[in-house]
Amino acid sequence: MSELLLRAEKWDGEDPLAGKRSAFVLDDVVYLDGNSLGALPAGVPGRVEDVVRRQWGELRIRSWEESGWWTAPERIGDRIAPLVGAAAGQIVVGDSTSVNVFKALVAAVRMAQSAGSGRDEILVDATTFPTDGYIAESAARMTGCSLRAVVPGEVPAALSGRTAAVLLNHVDYRTGRLHDLPALTAAVHAAGAVAVWDLCHSAGALPVGLDEHGVDLAVGCTYKYLNGGPGSPAYLYVRAELQDRFDSPLPGWNSHVEPFGMRASFEPAPGAVRGRVGTPDILSMLALEAALEVWDGVSIEAVRAKSLALTDFFLECVGAYVPEGRVESVTPAAHEERGSQVALRCADAGDVMKRLIEGGVVGDFRQPDVLRFGFTPLYVGFADVERAARVLAEVLR
Amino acid sequence: MSELLLRAEKWDGEDPLAGKRSAFVLDDVVYLDGNSLGALPAGVPGRVEDVVRRQWGELRIRSWEESGWWTAPERIGDRIAPLVGAAAGQIVVGDSTSVNVFKALVAAVRMAQSAGSGRDEILVDATTFPTDGYIAESAARMTGCSLRAVVPGEVPAALSGRTAAVLLNHVDYRTGRLHDLPALTAAVHAAGAVAVWDLCHSAGALPVGLDEHGVDLAVGCTYKYLNGGPGSPAYLYVRAELQDRFDSPLPGWNSHVEPFGMRASFEPAPGAVRGRVGTPDILSMLALEAALEVWDGVSIEAVRAKSLALTDFFLECVGAYVPEGRVESVTPAAHEERGSQVALRCADAGDVMKRLIEGGVVGDFRQPDVLRFGFTPLYVGFADVERAARVLAEVLR
Repeated sequence: MSELLLRAEKWDGEDPLAGKRSAFVLDDVVYLDGNSLGALPAGVPGRVEDVVRRQWGELRIRSWEESGWWTAPERIGDRIAPLVGAAAGQIVVGDSTSVNVFKALVAAVRMAQSAGSGRDEILVDATTFPTDGYIAESAARMTGCSLRAVVPGEVPAALSGRTAAVLLNHVDYRTGRLHDLPALTAAVHAAGAVAVWDLCHSAGALPVGLDEHGVDLAVGCTYKYLNGGPGSPAYLYVRAELQDRFDSPLPGWNSHVEPFGMRASFEPAPGAVRGRVGTPDILSMLALEAALEVWDGVSIEAVRAKSLALTDFFLECVGAYVPEGRVESVTPAAHEERGSQVALRCADAGDVMKRLIEGGVVGDFRQPDVLRFGFTPLYVGFADVERAARVLAEVLR
Repeated sequence: MSELLLRAEKWDGEDPLAGKRSAFVLDDVVYLDGNSLGALPAGVPGRVEDVVRRQWGELRIRSWEESGWWTAPERIGDRIAPLVGAAAGQIVVGDSTSVNVFKALVAAVRMAQSAGSGRDEILVDATTFPTDGYIAESAARMTGCSLRAVVPGEVPAALSGRTAAVLLNHVDYRTGRLHDLPALTAAVHAAGAVAVWDLCHSAGALPVGLDEHGVDLAVGCTYKYLNGGPGSPAYLYVRAELQDRFDSPLPGWNSHVEPFGMRASFEPAPGAVRGRVGTPDILSMLALEAALEVWDGVSIEAVRAKSLALTDFFLECVGAYVPEGRVESVTPAAHEERGSQVALRCADAGDVMKRLIEGGVVGDFRQPDVLRFGFTPLYVGFADVERAARVLAEVLR
């Protein structure tokens, strides 16, 4: 047995999160795609069956009250809150990430402009997952702003008295680079603008500290490190002090102060509820609620410590096993710049990923030449990591 | 046994849709709230279990291709299409009704304005379910239009060369009044404007004829007469000839011509797919797909015929059983003006509905004084109708 595998087994034996693996439905595949779709938490199927058969099938319409359907968006938001460093009452769950980016960014521009400042420019992360850029373009068009794409490191230099809002990703979906949320948020604020963060690739993998760092608005999906299931609803964070100024471009009946009053004119609800729109998607939402129970007793700091150990170890094993020059990491080596994934540039990456999957190691391929491996500390162990690197080396030989 | 009950039993025995009742999970309650939340189709629990345990739990990320997750929005749209008189390729499922109203109405205004017409007014149904009005106000604000609320019957007189788009409900959620979709659409077109219809209270209850009547855009929910489950995703119809001009305010990565190309600039997909936004909500969406199987072999004309017979019979039974003057129908008597519900104005309607529900008859209460009863022809029978009227009379005595 190799020294690396021996070390992996020792670390797995000492891992305080090792017991969480049994809270998921897993097989003998090494699943390193939890940054795309988290694995199934074992408690979800039973909960979903209850929601479908009893809550819908038997109680029917009564479940809007009796089964807590109506208040699910804010209740589940409060369950996510501690994972991203937010106090209760600031997060609602619902809609897709794209739709929430639209709400957040338009509302951010309106906050900046309501000060009578004439701010008319949105800055967007030039390395963003595409949907944020497309939605930012629409938000700019519909608020009369211009849009400028800049890489996160250059945001401080690009800020000006014209900047209304800045949309940034906490972790780059392709490279796994972690951006400096505290410093960038502070820079945005110093310029008098509003900061909107996309947490899709950080929430559930590392501490975010939304309240601590004074983030204004944030959005994120729940089907990656939060394991909510395919296309599970996204969430929207609006900092408590800004909620009264949150002027949504999607004011649906669910965000009305009196939704069943059936009033002709819109009067927004106070609090996080203001971020709701239409009728919440109950099946997906309550599957997410069950999925979030795996976080009971887990500290996000412990998750971060294990995540860094896993990605460090993967880079070490790749260095030891994979023939020189066949792959190149595009993920930063510095811990403070690394999310919970490793991205390797590789010739024929699409084919290589197919063969890896055939070999029992599931990551994914991102255009044009990246092998992407996500490390979910709740269910990935060190022996998995060693095996993934070993199979990768076999495929590349 | 009363003559009415005898007649009900005779009609139930002759009902060609009677066999469909066994396709639903029902108990001995008379469920007349299918216009709020449809009953559970018997095939749904097993399908959802497969989606959760096998597709998500075992295949995980592979299901995006292997289980047809990626193409679900347009595939399920094509399953809804014949129910609303649309050829394939014009409907996508996803997001809430409110969000789809926003997409449709903004896109409608852009279509009207792209002709260089300077049209700058949106007309909205003054009797609409509130969310449509709130969203219309936002759409007007964000497209530089003014908004005018008019009752549907006065739309023809309100149309002018300034009208960009008109948002109407096919059936009034409160009174059950059916509006004249063919004539109103023709009037909107004659004025050079774009017609957007909300089908929430008509789809699955009566023929809509979207293609036949040249409707431009339409939206609808799937949890009422389509029985998709609580908060199941809504749908968006864009007439084929208009799809190239559909300029969405929510251009997410799912509506990109090459979604996995990860391009920085947005290029919209052709066809109905252009109406998609973010990652589809798979659990709710595939529950809906299973729910739609109850429509196999059902003609919407047969559904309409039974619906009218049910509402006629309910009004007759109410007239026979309920003490004179205690209720007043606000639903039109004329068939061509009636949807699939009966709304009765009644003193203390909230309390009366509570006691009805205790008596095993489930309808709902709408502010300020309306008892609302929805008749779903796939699972409501004539004896149910007679019993509902009888219990109502007991409660009111």
